[in-house]
Amino acid sequence: MKKLDPTSFVPLYHQLKEIIVENIENNVWNPDDKIPSEHQLSAQYEVSRNTAKKAIEDLVQDGILYRVQGTGTFVTRPKIEQSLSGFYSFSQVLKEKGLNPKDLILKISIEAATQKVAKALQIPRDAEVIVLQRLRCANEEPIILESSYLPKNRIENIEKMNTVGETPLYDILANEYQLFVTSAKETFEPVLIREYEGNLLKVKEGSPALLLERVAFDRQRVPVEYCKSIVRGDRCRFYTELI
Amino acid sequence: MKKLDPTSFVPLYHQLKEIIVENIENNVWNPDDKIPSEHQLSAQYEVSRNTAKKAIEDLVQDGILYRVQGTGTFVTRPKIEQSLSGFYSFSQVLKEKGLNPKDLILKISIEAATQKVAKALQIPRDAEVIVLQRLRCANEEPIILESSYLPKNRIENIEKMNTVGETPLYDILANEYQLFVTSAKETFEPVLIREYEGNLLKVKEGSPALLLERVAFDRQRVPVEYCKSIVRGDRCRFYTELI
Repeated sequence: MKKLDPTSFVPLYHQLKEIIVENIENNVWNPDDKIPSEHQLSAQYEVSRNTAKKAIEDLVQDGILYRVQGTGTFVTRPKIEQSLSGFYSFSQVLKEKGLNPKDLILKISIEAATQKVAKALQIPRDAEVIVLQRLRCANEEPIILESSYLPKNRIENIEKMNTVGETPLYDILANEYQLFVTSAKETFEPVLIREYEGNLLKVKEGSPALLLERVAFDRQRVPVEYCKSIVRGDRCRFYTELI
Repeated sequence: MKKLDPTSFVPLYHQLKEIIVENIENNVWNPDDKIPSEHQLSAQYEVSRNTAKKAIEDLVQDGILYRVQGTGTFVTRPKIEQSLSGFYSFSQVLKEKGLNPKDLILKISIEAATQKVAKALQIPRDAEVIVLQRLRCANEEPIILESSYLPKNRIENIEKMNTVGETPLYDILANEYQLFVTSAKETFEPVLIREYEGNLLKVKEGSPALLLERVAFDRQRVPVEYCKSIVRGDRCRFYTELI
């Protein structure tokens, strides 16, 4: 077992953090494993209880460990990485990672466009839109709360939307409604989870999340979808390759 | 002046929100303008104080309005939009938007690589790295806290780094050290601002931020920089165009 070096200029809590991270990277401790308690760590590495506490607190803040009240401290599962560089299918990303995708349909309804939706879709305020709200899950765990808004005048027969639990939305749009999404603009910004979002996503209000907004266009560059997603920050990370 | 419709199925606070947003979009109220108080809004639109309060609270949470304790509620400035699709120079982005870029150099030092930095740069743990920490500002307002880590063995004469306040880092790397960044991988995840970050960025601990990590490679695909940025979520938004 690695020892801490009290003569080093690196603070002891920092050395302990690095050892814990190393143990995780070397699979001594695996995702969802319980790690030793503060008390055990302080005895094992001959540091004060406060030092162990600070190391753990830091790693919890880093998202590397998580706490379960009254149970202990555990290793966080790695975040789901999604590329930003192309049209990704969330279900496809999950499948490639060996996770089981599942969509819970929260709502399919016809509503009047709010100002924001009308502007994004370039339709009149109060024009009818189809609202499709889904909770997108990986292995039964809710990850993304996604709301799509589609111009009603381009969607005949809303019933065909019902298969969206099994078929990707853009496939339905293409096959059932001859709406072909060929380009999109996405914006990303960090936000705090709100109470109602937290209840659905099973995370605390005020947790970090990514707000992802997309306007998808057809070949004529007419908007066919405005989509707003709240993505759990503790479970997802995005990446892009620059060349 | 627009009136609210008490017979509509749309809740009154929501109607009031939409009117406020419209006033902002139509430049009735401009960025940093003070909007009427709850009391004034409730009198003006003949709604309860609670309705006005809820509308304002929602818009503050949406980041459209902000409060200054004891002074009032103001219109938020639009976020700085940055493309994710290419190598962007933050200074360049600011200049294009008519904002004045300025870097505050917090630190240029030589340190031992932590595990994370060593892994990113593919160098031995504890190998020497040059740490360059900057507070990147727009019109004197701190926006990004950026820490770059460069392998010391590829940087002779660290003094040439001192011009980084005026010259883009990658230009210095190319011109002074013959290090040519030709590709990079960036990851993005939402985080909460920590206390020390908040002090530097002048936002509250727990505010939403984007953690942006980049590994930049030279032509031989050898890492030349690991960069970690904390980007204020209340001031920045990122976008990408998909085709």
